[in-house]
Formats: sequence, C-alpha cells, structure tokens
Amino acid sequence: MKDMIELRSDTFTLPTREMMDAMQEAVLGDDVYGEDPTVRHLEEEAARMLGKEAAILMPSGTMANLASLLAYCPRGSKVLVGNESDIYIYEAAGASVCGGIMYEPIPTQTDGRLAIADLEKAFPLEPEDPQFALPSLICLENPHNRMGGRVLSLSYLEEIRLFANSKGIPVHMDGARLFNASVALGVEASEIAHFADSVQICLSKGLSAPIGSIVAGTKLFIEKVYRLRKMLGGGMRQAGIIAAPGLVALKQMVDRIAIDHAHALRLAKGLAKIPGIVIRVEDVETNMVFFRIEHPKHTWQTLIKAAHERGLNVAELGHGRIRAVTHSGIQSEDIDKAILIVREILS
Amino acid sequence: MKDMIELRSDTFTLPTREMMDAMQEAVLGDDVYGEDPTVRHLEEEAARMLGKEAAILMPSGTMANLASLLAYCPRGSKVLVGNESDIYIYEAAGASVCGGIMYEPIPTQTDGRLAIADLEKAFPLEPEDPQFALPSLICLENPHNRMGGRVLSLSYLEEIRLFANSKGIPVHMDGARLFNASVALGVEASEIAHFADSVQICLSKGLSAPIGSIVAGTKLFIEKVYRLRKMLGGGMRQAGIIAAPGLVALKQMVDRIAIDHAHALRLAKGLAKIPGIVIRVEDVETNMVFFRIEHPKHTWQTLIKAAHERGLNVAELGHGRIRAVTHSGIQSEDIDKAILIVREILS
Amino acid sequence: MKDMIELRSDTFTLPTREMMDAMQEAVLGDDVYGEDPTVRHLEEEAARMLGKEAAILMPSGTMANLASLLAYCPRGSKVLVGNESDIYIYEAAGASVCGGIMYEPIPTQTDGRLAIADLEKAFPLEPEDPQFALPSLICLENPHNRMGGRVLSLSYLEEIRLFANSKGIPVHMDGARLFNASVALGVEASEIAHFADSVQICLSKGLSAPIGSIVAGTKLFIEKVYRLRKMLGGGMRQAGIIAAPGLVALKQMVDRIAIDHAHALRLAKGLAKIPGIVIRVEDVETNMVFFRIEHPKHTWQTLIKAAHERGLNVAELGHGRIRAVTHSGIQSEDIDKAILIVREILS
Amino acid sequence: MKDMIELRSDTFTLPTREMMDAMQEAVLGDDVYGEDPTVRHLEEEAARMLGKEAAILMPSGTMANLASLLAYCPRGSKVLVGNESDIYIYEAAGASVCGGIMYEPIPTQTDGRLAIADLEKAFPLEPEDPQFALPSLICLENPHNRMGGRVLSLSYLEEIRLFANSKGIPVHMDGARLFNASVALGVEASEIAHFADSVQICLSKGLSAPIGSIVAGTKLFIEKVYRLRKMLGGGMRQAGIIAAPGLVALKQMVDRIAIDHAHALRLAKGLAKIPGIVIRVEDVETNMVFFRIEHPKHTWQTLIKAAHERGLNVAELGHGRIRAVTHSGIQSEDIDKAILIVREILS
Repeated sequence: MKDMIELRSDTFTLPTREMMDAMQEAVLGDDVYGEDPTVRHLEEEAARMLGKEAAILMPSGTMANLASLLAYCPRGSKVLVGNESDIYIYEAAGASVCGGIMYEPIPTQTDGRLAIADLEKAFPLEPEDPQFALPSLICLENPHNRMGGRVLSLSYLEEIRLFANSKGIPVHMDGARLFNASVALGVEASEIAHFADSVQICLSKGLSAPIGSIVAGTKLFIEKVYRLRKMLGGGMRQAGIIAAPGLVALKQMVDRIAIDHAHALRLAKGLAKIPGIVIRVEDVETNMVFFRIEHPKHTWQTLIKAAHERGLNVAELGHGRIRAVTHSGIQSEDIDKAILIVREILS
Repeated sequence: MKDMIELRSDTFTLPTREMMDAMQEAVLGDDVYGEDPTVRHLEEEAARMLGKEAAILMPSGTMANLASLLAYCPRGSKVLVGNESDIYIYEAAGASVCGGIMYEPIPTQTDGRLAIADLEKAFPLEPEDPQFALPSLICLENPHNRMGGRVLSLSYLEEIRLFANSKGIPVHMDGARLFNASVALGVEASEIAHFADSVQICLSKGLSAPIGSIVAGTKLFIEKVYRLRKMLGGGMRQAGIIAAPGLVALKQMVDRIAIDHAHALRLAKGLAKIPGIVIRVEDVETNMVFFRIEHPKHTWQTLIKAAHERGLNVAELGHGRIRAVTHSGIQSEDIDKAILIVREILS
Repeated sequence: MKDMIELRSDTFTLPTREMMDAMQEAVLGDDVYGEDPTVRHLEEEAARMLGKEAAILMPSGTMANLASLLAYCPRGSKVLVGNESDIYIYEAAGASVCGGIMYEPIPTQTDGRLAIADLEKAFPLEPEDPQFALPSLICLENPHNRMGGRVLSLSYLEEIRLFANSKGIPVHMDGARLFNASVALGVEASEIAHFADSVQICLSKGLSAPIGSIVAGTKLFIEKVYRLRKMLGGGMRQAGIIAAPGLVALKQMVDRIAIDHAHALRLAKGLAKIPGIVIRVEDVETNMVFFRIEHPKHTWQTLIKAAHERGLNVAELGHGRIRAVTHSGIQSEDIDKAILIVREILS
Repeated sequence: MKDMIELRSDTFTLPTREMMDAMQEAVLGDDVYGEDPTVRHLEEEAARMLGKEAAILMPSGTMANLASLLAYCPRGSKVLVGNESDIYIYEAAGASVCGGIMYEPIPTQTDGRLAIADLEKAFPLEPEDPQFALPSLICLENPHNRMGGRVLSLSYLEEIRLFANSKGIPVHMDGARLFNASVALGVEASEIAHFADSVQICLSKGLSAPIGSIVAGTKLFIEKVYRLRKMLGGGMRQAGIIAAPGLVALKQMVDRIAIDHAHALRLAKGLAKIPGIVIRVEDVETNMVFFRIEHPKHTWQTLIKAAHERGLNVAELGHGRIRAVTHSGIQSEDIDKAILIVREILS
C-alpha cells in the first residue's frame, strides 16, 4: 500500500502531524450534552469562514446533506437535484427513506450547472392541483464531482439565487469540496456560500481531516439540523477528538489546495499527450481529471487493472470514464510517475 | 354544462342506465369484513379477464398504483418509471411519502416505451456498494397518456419481460386504459397483462363506471395489496355499490371502445386539415388526440378559452400540448362540431 | 344471511330506499376535477352540521383520520392517542408509515377519557433536547368504541381544549359515531365538534350510507387534507354516487339513532338478567353493549359460535369481551330474540 | 470544570492515555471504501467478544439501534419496546421517521424486564386482519438505564428467546452498557448476547472511548446494517481514528468496571443514611444510583442546583428521580465527597 499512488479519491487523505497533535491536546467534553469546547470552537470557526450565522459538525457529508434536506423539505415535496449529483446518485435515497421526499433529477450541464429553464419546468403550472408534488429546495453541487470538478461561476450562483427567491424556495449547496472552488475562483469560501441558504463542506477530502463534515446556515436552520442529527444517530460523545483535526484542516489546509489543482492540470496535460486517452484539459478546474480510453487493446477496465498492478490507483466514475483525484498525499513526482505508468500501458 | 362537448378527459364519463340499474339490484355486505358478494364477483371477473390469479377493488387508480409499488419495493429501493408517466408526474410522490421509495425517471420514448438501454443504466455496476439505491420494480404505462395514448407492442412487452427476468425484478403495468390498448391491438387484455407481474385498470375512464380501479396479480401479491389498501384507507364498507357498475363496465363497455378510437382518428384527421394545428395523425392509436397551436394569433391558452366559450372543453396536458379525449359521452356529431369550432377559432 | 340478527357492528347497515333513489337522481361530475355538484353539496352540508368552515368527503374513516394526522403532525413528532383507540389499534400504523409520526399511546379511562395528567407526561421537560420527539396533536375518540360506546362529556372536552391551547397543539376528534354522541347528549353535533380543531365522521355505521366519511375543520386544514387525499389515492371520479346517499344519511338518519340507543339499553338490561353474563348496564350510553362470559361451560368463543348457529351474530372486541351493536337494520323484536338466544345458550 | 464530580452520566468519560497513544499509531484508510484496517480489527474483535458472526462500527448508539430496527422491521410493522427504554424515549422517533415502523411500548417491570404476558398481548388474535400492525421485533435493554441499571437475568433472557422463537420474530438487545451487565453477572458478554439475534454496545460510556458504538449479529444482518449506515450518513472516512481507542476500550476497560459498581454501591449506601433521601440500595446492580428527595425544604430541582454549586453534578432522569452514574473518571474519594455534599445540603 505504501508505494501506491492513490488517485482514486481525495477521501484517502491521511491526517497531518499537526492534526494528530491537535487531537492529543484537545479539551474534550460530551458533545451530546453540548459540552465539548473543541466542537464549539470548530463550529464557530466554520460558520465564520462560510459567512453563516451558525454551523454544526456531522459525522459525514451524506448526513450533512440528508439532515439539510430533511430540515427544508416537507414530506411529499420535491427536492430538485442534478441528475449527475452525488446527492442523487451516491446517497442511497436517504431523503425519500427518511423524509418522504421525492428527488426530481434535473439535467446537469457539462459544467455542473442546472439550467434555469430546466428548473422552471419542475414547477407545475397549477400548484394548487393536488396531483403535483411541489418543489421545496434546489440543491447545487460545487465543485461538481461527476462533471469533473467543474466550478460554478459566481454569476451563475447569483442567477440561481434570484430564481430561487422568485419561487420562494431555498438553495442548499453540496460543497463537499467547496474550498477547491474557492481556491479555483480566488475568492473566499463565504463569497460562494453567500448565494446559498446553507452549505455543507467536508473536513476530510482535500482538507485531509480524518472524519467529519460541516453544515452552515441560519441559526434557526442549524437548530433544525441539530434535532435531525440526533434522530439520525449523528450525535457523538467526545467529538472534540475529530473536531480538533477539523480545526487544523480549516486553518492550515485550505491554501495548499492550489498545489492539488496544479498537480491535476499537470496530470491532465501529461495524459492528453498519450494516444488512446480522450481528455479535455480545459475542463480541469480543480483537483480532478476525468478521461476516457479509446484504444484498440484497452478499455477502462483493463487500464484500471494494469495501472493498479504498476502501483497506480484510479477508478471508474460514471459512464465509463476514469477519474484521477489529486490531494495532499500526492507529490509532483507521483504525477509524473502516474503519467508514465499510463503511457507504458497504452503503448 | 349539458351542451358542452367534453373532451378534456374520459374521466368525465357518466354511468350508463345498466350501471344505475345494477346498483339498485346489487347484493351488498360489509367489504371491510370481506362480506360483500358483489365486490367478490367483480374481483373474480376482473382477475379472469386480466388472466391473473387474483384481483382487488381500489377507490382509485392512484391508490391502485401506490399500493402496488409499496407491495413490491422495499424502502430505499428505486422504482423505475417513465419520466412522462402518470405515476411519476400525477401521483403526488406517494411512493416516496408512504414507502421511502425513490423514483428514478427513465426517458420516455415518443411511443411510450422505456428503452432497455436506459433501464439498464439504472442498475449500478456494483450493487453491493451501499451508496447506491437498487432498482426493485419497473413500471410501464399502457396505453401511455402523455405520449398520446400510444400502445406498447406485444414484442416490446416481451422484451421488457425478459429484461426484468434477467434482473430479477418485477414489472407493474399502469393500465388505467388497458382495454383501449387491447382494442387497439385486437387482443384480449389478458394477453397484454401476461407480460407484467401486476396490472392496474380503471373502471372509470373509457369503461364509464363512476368509481373504482382494479389491481390484479398473483394471490400472494394481492394479499399484500389488501393489507396496504387498509392502511391507506381504501377499505370501503358496502363497496358493492361501486362494484356493481364496475361489473357492468367490464361486461358491456369494452367492445364499444372501438367507437371512441374511430372518433379520435376522425377528430385528428379533421384537425390536421386546419392551418395552425400541428398534429401527427399517425400517432393516434386509441382515444386521445394531442396537438399544438402554431398560429399568428393563437396560443394553447387562447384556443382553450375560445373553445370553451363555444361549447368545447379541451385542456393542456404537458409541454403546451392540447389533449382531446373521446369516450362514451361523445357522439359522431360532437366530433364534427369540435372540428368546426376549432376551425372557426383559428380562421 | 337474511335471517341473521347482525349485531357484530353498525358497519353492516344497508342503504335505505331513499338513499338508493338519491343515487339515481344525483347530478354527477368528475370530483377529481372538483366538478361533482353532489359532492360539493354534501361537503357544505356536513361542514354546516359540524360547525366547521369546510369539509371533505373521504372513502373511509381510516383515510379521514390518516390524512388528518398527516396534515397536523410533522415527521418525527408524536401523536397522542388513547391506547384503546381505533386509531392506535385498528388503523395499521398508517401515521408511522406515511408520515414518520410516532404514536404515543395514553392510558384510556373506562369512560373513554384521556386524563390530562397522563397527557401532560407526554410533554418532555426539556423540549429543546433533540432526543425527545415532541407532541404535535391530541386525538380523542367520541363516542369511544372499545370503551363501550361511552360519550365524552362537554365539560371534559372543554378541559381538553384548554389543555391543548396551553400546549399550543391541536385536537382531532375521531367521531366515527359522532351523531351517536350528539343524540346521547341531546346537543347538536356542532356543539361537540366545537371543542376540536377537526373531526371525522362516518356516513356509514349508524347513518347507514354505503361508503364514505367526512373530515371537517378550518378551510386551510381541509386544503391540506385535500392534497393528502389525492396522494393517498382517495380522490374518486363520479363520487356523487356515494355523496348522494351520504346527504340522505345526514338529513334523515340522525334522529332515528335514538332508537338504536333504546335498543342497546333494552339488550343490556335483558342480558344483565342472564346468569353467566357480566355487564354494566349503566355504561351503555349509545348503541353498543359490551359483556363478558363467566360461565361454567361457556367462554366468549363458544358463545359466539353457538349464537351464530342460532341466527345471532356478535363478535369479540378486545380483552375477551363480546360486543353487540345496534343499528338501523335491527328491530325491537331482534333485540328480544337476541336476548332469548343468549339465554338459551347459557342455560 | 476540573474540580467537578461528574455523576450525571458515564458518557462524560474521557479517553485514557493508552487510547490517545493508540490513535497516534493507528494505521488508517478510507473506511467508506472498506479499507481502514483498524476498523476491520475492531469489528472482528467486537464480534468475537460478543459471540456473533460479524460486527460493525457506528458513530453512535442511537444509529446502532436505528439501523438495527430498520434492518429487521418492514414498514408498517411494530417494534415492541419497553415504555421506559432509551429506544422509546430518547431516540427521537427515528424508527417511525426513517422506517415507517410503529413503536408499541410494553410496560417495563421494575427490574427492566418486559413481561411475556404483556408481549403476548401485542400479537393480534387475527394476524391476517389488515387493520392490525404486526410485531416484527422485540427490543430489550440490558442493563436497563431508566430502571436503575438493573441487569436482566440469563434465565429471563432464555425465556424471551423461546417466546420470540415461538412467534418467529427476532430479538435486539440495546446493550449500551452490556459490559456492566456482564461484570455484574460474572459471565462473558457473549453469554448474554447469545440470547439475542443482535446486540449494540457503546464504546463510550463505561468503556471510556471517545466515540462509537458497535452492532453485532449474523453476517447477513450486518450486511443490511452496513447498507443502512451509509444511507443514514454513518459511513466515516479514516474511522480508524476512533476505532483505535475503541479497541483499547474493549481490551483494557472491561474488567475495571467492577470498580464503578463498587463505587455505585458505596454511594447508594452512603446516601441511604441521609434523611430525606429515598433509595433502594438493593436495586443497585451496576454503576447507577437512582434516588428521590422527600424533604421539607428540598426538591430534586433544588438539590441538583445546590449540589452543582458545591461541585457535584447529578441530574434528573425521569419521574423526578435523580440519577448518579459512576465511571472511570470517578475515584473512591469522589464518592465520599459526593455523599458529604448531599448530606450537607439536606441537613
């Protein structure tokens, strides 16, 4: 394992030395009683960085999204989600199971946007007709995982905000990798989160903390999420143990994400030169590289297998595309080596 | 009201004289205790005509579909439904609310089919991965309402049957107007229902009974639907009152559907000759006529309004199309008059 | 069947001649489009009689209660119901299934009351603590079926009203047999319903219509119930067919309920004289008689069987008690004959 | 905070030095990909100690119970739980919300047992009647929190096992403090768990790990719980961070629980001598002491407040009783000091 170049996901990041130290020194309490000061500290810091009134620690991004949806959407209403979004595809139908909420998948544009015209169609002409489920929430994903880590522009976000306002429904942003978007756009995370009523971010992934996600929003909304977290089983005892590295993640790991983006671009450019690789270098905006295999002797299946045997881990991520994700565990030389491995296999 | 030509839907059909007489003579009992002989009789007759082991009376097609979905789909599984199907669009998210089931809308072909390739995509490559909701049921609609009353071919149904078998999941057919399909194809309803594990039919609509739908399937399945019907509140006391006209509907009203189809074709042909009407006459297979307005002075909104003022009721049914539906309350001369009215408005 | 004295339930009542005539003459329309004038008429009349802003026709009392609970109770809240109430025992957990609502059963007093002190205990001392589900509705049953048809006093209802107000939660009354309570108390049904935010009544049972129940409440509440009815599958097409006899039931069948009460009392008194019957005559307030068998040679099972063979139908209804219910299908001589049959069996 | 004697709960326990060291040395991976070896190790060790085929790490006991209930109980079925159980009272109605499951509270005996006769009553005489929700699971709590930490006897557990077998339904044991029961009975935890199909234990509480609970059962059952954990949002990334101290908890912290029990008994005996304290010393079987205040000048509210001001934290836990819980953070002298403080206040 030690020698593998792990590009399957940035979820494989390991905690830093500083995180491990922070854990040792953390002042702990029972967070189910609301008495863990490290958790409090993390939640305050996260709220501040995201420009929201309040924030709450969750055991996972899945629960962060699920509790957010449950907080907004009455049973029998529709949540408008991208048809390529993680919430729709990878979160096990939680909102239908736990909330009686209908997912309405909206076509996802290649850059991760949901077109306003498509969202508009989800609103029935006669909302008073009881046969129609009514939209209660728009979910965005930013950056967009399955669309290649593409970042939503601020102007698009403003457009969505105005549309949502005109419809009287809120916007939730699945910002599992929000800081990748913030680094890519060169703006504060709060400037992005500003356009959404609530946002979830992962402390793991690019930020490299071992466990935990954050939901941020209004105080009233976070109170609802707090109740829902308990019901779902996300209340944890001495949660300061995971909040301490989370604080380090927020304070020390954001700026270095630029390196991951540079690595991703380098990887994309390198792969683009290999015959048999189909890739759009210009789409690489954050830490993800998606490509296809069009090769007389290879498919994505055989390439993944061959790469693994040579010390490179990548994986398929929808529609037969291979995804490679850079992160804090990947160095410059790993990128070069990865390119070499793929070149070798396909030549 | 008396003089209106009512083409908005075949749900406006009124009970026949024979149905009213049957109500008077029906032997009644408390069907919640299972003691209404007229209901029993209807259920046996319906099962026979649909070629299934058992059948059950429901207060509506919505409940018939909902209870069927609940009987098949575990919470957290996906029901594969057409994105233009009534179940997806007009049934108020019931399966998510009452069953924790996720709807996965599959693109609907212009003839009402769901392409096997599209269904295939709904099955994750790694079903053991817990992030994926797994398909538990395929729903077909036949004839397909929003696709213009188009009828699914027997060869397509066989293809679906084989596909579903290969995946190990059942098929439910929303046959609200199944007898229209049977008349259009010139086969028994049971020959169509044969390819589905269960089927729901409406006793209202073309068959003209006042209230009621039927679900038919295996004995075991109907036992489950029976439990679910009680939970949903569909158990009715002296239900023989509505079963009696339902029996008349099944016995006397099937063959005359051919007249409705002839009327629809006649209407379509008449409308096709009117400038400003966009219509595909060759798509009219049953009792529905869909058309668009492309006219310098008229939209669907103005046409509907103007038609209403002249004694013709039609309605929009998705994507700005106008739908006209023929049924037992419509005579030959109503068709001619309807064409005249539209011609007048648009000229 | 013809010769059986049917005392198992008042749900076995058959429609009267006037009801059958009303069905023939009813002006019908498609009630799913809101265009059935007979249904409208029934709903207005019911709202008026119950002293509420609005009312809505439902296919059953179960759906009437279920939709009411769904309209009031957010997911994860508790509905406070009597532990002997029909809603808790006989309605198949619908509120949990369709609404994610927790039933909290409150001990039922022998006269059908829920003690205020017991209700009080269901409210946690620290409602802000997310581990507690919070009460969102109190349900009463009046008269109370499993408590022997006992009627809640107006003074108790006022007490509940004040308690509910003090807690800020609504009261729903399951008045499946509300007119029995109204006749027993000698007050209008609206005087009783006055203390509840909403009430459901059955048109079947004592009122003898074949199918249907009514929910009445504020306009806003009924709009919610209307949406929920569609979702549950309770929207029916030419529902005037069942509304017409329902109207007759409301207009002609209320006053005669006094006869059923007299019959019940006569039955109770007659049974009380039979050795082996344990009965509290003073508890018979409406149309129900509960008794136990304490006999050297008989149990409730053997008595029910023996009575059936002699032409008398009664049934067990909880805790080994036998219930006999009088209704419009029972005449004075049936009562005498029933007493005779029981006397014969036990002697 | 440093000087407070914390007896509100054993959930306030802090990780030991060995646990902190174990975290530093843990080999980590992404457990959502199933690649965290420390989590694997913990799950195997837990399964072994509990005598079950498999086990799974959960972020909390609430989720451990919730996922277990969801794995067993179909929607619309009843879970039989003690009316004083944590699952019924403190877990926010999760099974109704996420599973459409009805809680049926069974009276809890003073020693934590559910009487077989009471369980029997929850099974309807006519299970085929669709109005009845059917039992699908029996839940036990052992030791029983709100019944004073009382331990269920092995003979009772055997009785329950036989009863459940006779009914064909499984038994889930909420063993949040199972090792307290095992130490109290002087048997292995697996000997207790043996009588249940599944068991949940908390790594926090007496075992003093910071975060985490375990569910153990058959391999097939744990696979279901694994899927449900993802849906609920309990999948965590580098979960080895919390699994490592969990392993230490299982290996090093079980035996020392005897000390907590001795402390609890000492506390109980000390309190018993104070006028104004009502306590049953003979009921103290594990690490909990429940008592009441019957005092001319004090109530539980004033005692809790006064104790807090003097450096002793205790809390109310149902019905006006005060609960004091001993744990690894409490020394002998704390017990003596606690008794003194209470004596001072009440004298």
